[in-house]
Amino acid sequence: MRVLIMGGDGYLGWPTAMALAAKGHDVHVVDNYLRRTLAQQTQSEALMPNPNLHDRAALFRSASDAEIGVHIGDVANYRTLEHIFQEFQPEAVVHYAEQPAAPYSMIGFEQASLTLNNNLNATLNLIWAVLEHAPDCHIVKLGTMGEYGTPNIDIEEGWIEVEHKGRKETFLYPRAAGSLYHTTKVLDTDLLWFYVRTYGLRVTDLMQGPVYGLSTDESDLDGRLLPNFHYDDIFGTVVNRFLVQAVAGVPLTVYGKGGQVRGYLNLRDTLQCVELAMTHPAEKGQLRILNQFTETFSVNELAERVQRVGNEMGLDVQVQSIDNPRKEKEEHYYNPVHSGLLDLGLQPTYMTDAIVAGMLEQILPYKERIDTKKILPRVRWK
Amino acid sequence: MRVLIMGGDGYLGWPTAMALAAKGHDVHVVDNYLRRTLAQQTQSEALMPNPNLHDRAALFRSASDAEIGVHIGDVANYRTLEHIFQEFQPEAVVHYAEQPAAPYSMIGFEQASLTLNNNLNATLNLIWAVLEHAPDCHIVKLGTMGEYGTPNIDIEEGWIEVEHKGRKETFLYPRAAGSLYHTTKVLDTDLLWFYVRTYGLRVTDLMQGPVYGLSTDESDLDGRLLPNFHYDDIFGTVVNRFLVQAVAGVPLTVYGKGGQVRGYLNLRDTLQCVELAMTHPAEKGQLRILNQFTETFSVNELAERVQRVGNEMGLDVQVQSIDNPRKEKEEHYYNPVHSGLLDLGLQPTYMTDAIVAGMLEQILPYKERIDTKKILPRVRWK
Repeated sequence: MRVLIMGGDGYLGWPTAMALAAKGHDVHVVDNYLRRTLAQQTQSEALMPNPNLHDRAALFRSASDAEIGVHIGDVANYRTLEHIFQEFQPEAVVHYAEQPAAPYSMIGFEQASLTLNNNLNATLNLIWAVLEHAPDCHIVKLGTMGEYGTPNIDIEEGWIEVEHKGRKETFLYPRAAGSLYHTTKVLDTDLLWFYVRTYGLRVTDLMQGPVYGLSTDESDLDGRLLPNFHYDDIFGTVVNRFLVQAVAGVPLTVYGKGGQVRGYLNLRDTLQCVELAMTHPAEKGQLRILNQFTETFSVNELAERVQRVGNEMGLDVQVQSIDNPRKEKEEHYYNPVHSGLLDLGLQPTYMTDAIVAGMLEQILPYKERIDTKKILPRVRWK
Repeated sequence: MRVLIMGGDGYLGWPTAMALAAKGHDVHVVDNYLRRTLAQQTQSEALMPNPNLHDRAALFRSASDAEIGVHIGDVANYRTLEHIFQEFQPEAVVHYAEQPAAPYSMIGFEQASLTLNNNLNATLNLIWAVLEHAPDCHIVKLGTMGEYGTPNIDIEEGWIEVEHKGRKETFLYPRAAGSLYHTTKVLDTDLLWFYVRTYGLRVTDLMQGPVYGLSTDESDLDGRLLPNFHYDDIFGTVVNRFLVQAVAGVPLTVYGKGGQVRGYLNLRDTLQCVELAMTHPAEKGQLRILNQFTETFSVNELAERVQRVGNEMGLDVQVQSIDNPRKEKEEHYYNPVHSGLLDLGLQPTYMTDAIVAGMLEQILPYKERIDTKKILPRVRWK
């Protein structure tokens, strides 16, 4: 299948490109290095060095014989995307091309404006490139479980039937996200849903939880093919921060009470999910929404797990609660459905102690590169 | 009260500015004539001539002794709005500054992109101008009843309590709009709601139905103070099209079966509603949503009413169904709540035969200026 990966330089984009190319798909990536630029501007560089996309593609070709086509450009500019569509005629597009950091989107006006404009225009441009140049193309859009927030009722898979005053209607599940970044993903879903129901696009919107992991079949071929690993407060996730704090010998910093529960998944499972979505495309006129995670943890549970495994490896891991820089519920109900991807054939890779130990082992050689000042919160919601 | 009206040159913006200035408020308007520009580009000019804002303000000062401050600029550019906030320090802002035509937003990519970027950036910029320069300022945002679409259950006033699997949660009422323009208003509401709950803004979002009418206490002072009157398929509403068709002696064109029901209101009532919202501001941290219309009509009922009144005035009015250029339900359930503004004191002006006759009388002197080619659908959703 001809697949275009928008945001192909990202933590998920690059491993997805390699995994799909290794399976024989014709893969092209496009990226403008926005995340690298913003990470540099905010002193949030990744822990390990990552070659640029042309070098990554050359290294991967040497290691595997598989080709990945590389385009450097900004998909928030319609002409960039249109030219790629005209040349490459994708049958599927995986859309990761968004400013992905919640704290970045909360720094101030400039960062909020960049996030809103980049994310909404990338999505609108993709919709129109498909409408005008590849109307049968299947859009696989990365959403986030964060779109739903933490409501007091079960989170369904995208849709909910509401019974009200004796009548019934099925709606998009109502969303209330916890950052401007997450809110732009809510807007993306609204925008896609309008064009799906009006023009019959085929779209899968993957509501993904936080992803962890540094190892895939393809990145393991050569150390230089490693995914980007951000451990800072802005581009890093809570799992990455805890792993790096354990290695650096500083306390794991739990935001507030630590009862925040989210659905997590291994990077290897993201690759499975995206391929399952691609090979089982949505129908024309269908916005298929799948909740993409394999297990839920509270922040405290994650901290305890990293602490236990780290201590078994001879590290001295402490856990400390700090003032929560975010505005979020620190104790809440959380029961999201996530059966759709299992039904398509997902084989979950759970976060075992061995997986946690494996991640710590991968980070240990880079201990001297860790800058612990980057880990504590530099951005506050208040 | 110091009030800034964003989009102060519009059909609602200019009459609102005059009404509030006449009541003694300190009123400033900002507009970049975007609607005039787009109307010209699409051959959709208003029926009657409208002086520019500086001339309108001078005419109004002569007629009433009341002052209106005029700023020409683009509020989708943050610096424009920020400068106005720094100078004027508004206590309330009425936000009409959006590309308002559903058919315009459906022409093609360029128009969709302009609508999305203009409307979302105007709203984001307003949010940040308030956060940074006037945190107590009350935002009165014009939404649209079109955000809700036509669900099969009652439409509540902004919020709905959902009972699901034995648990309860209150959500923003789920929305599914019928055009990209209306969808941008859904996104506006999502965006405002995020910043309200995160930073404690005070916002009233007025979900308004289509407005009709050419007469207000202030515009009646001088014929040149008339509101903009668009009768074309792009910027005109169904009421305006029917009135002009009746005067021009061509059939009133009903889209499809004509069972499309919407909530309508008189321009005089919009002025009441906006002033009621302003003088009874939302609390800090409250997104107050009010459904702003006074009565519902189907398209067929409107056509019959204009036909009956026109014929009584000696016009020969025919009604004809044409292929629906839009994608919408032509027969549907529609039962929206609209008690909030009545509770605040709204005194409705219903669409009596006398009101319809009065509008026809105002249009008759301009009969020779009508271009009937502009009335038939030039934009299709398909």
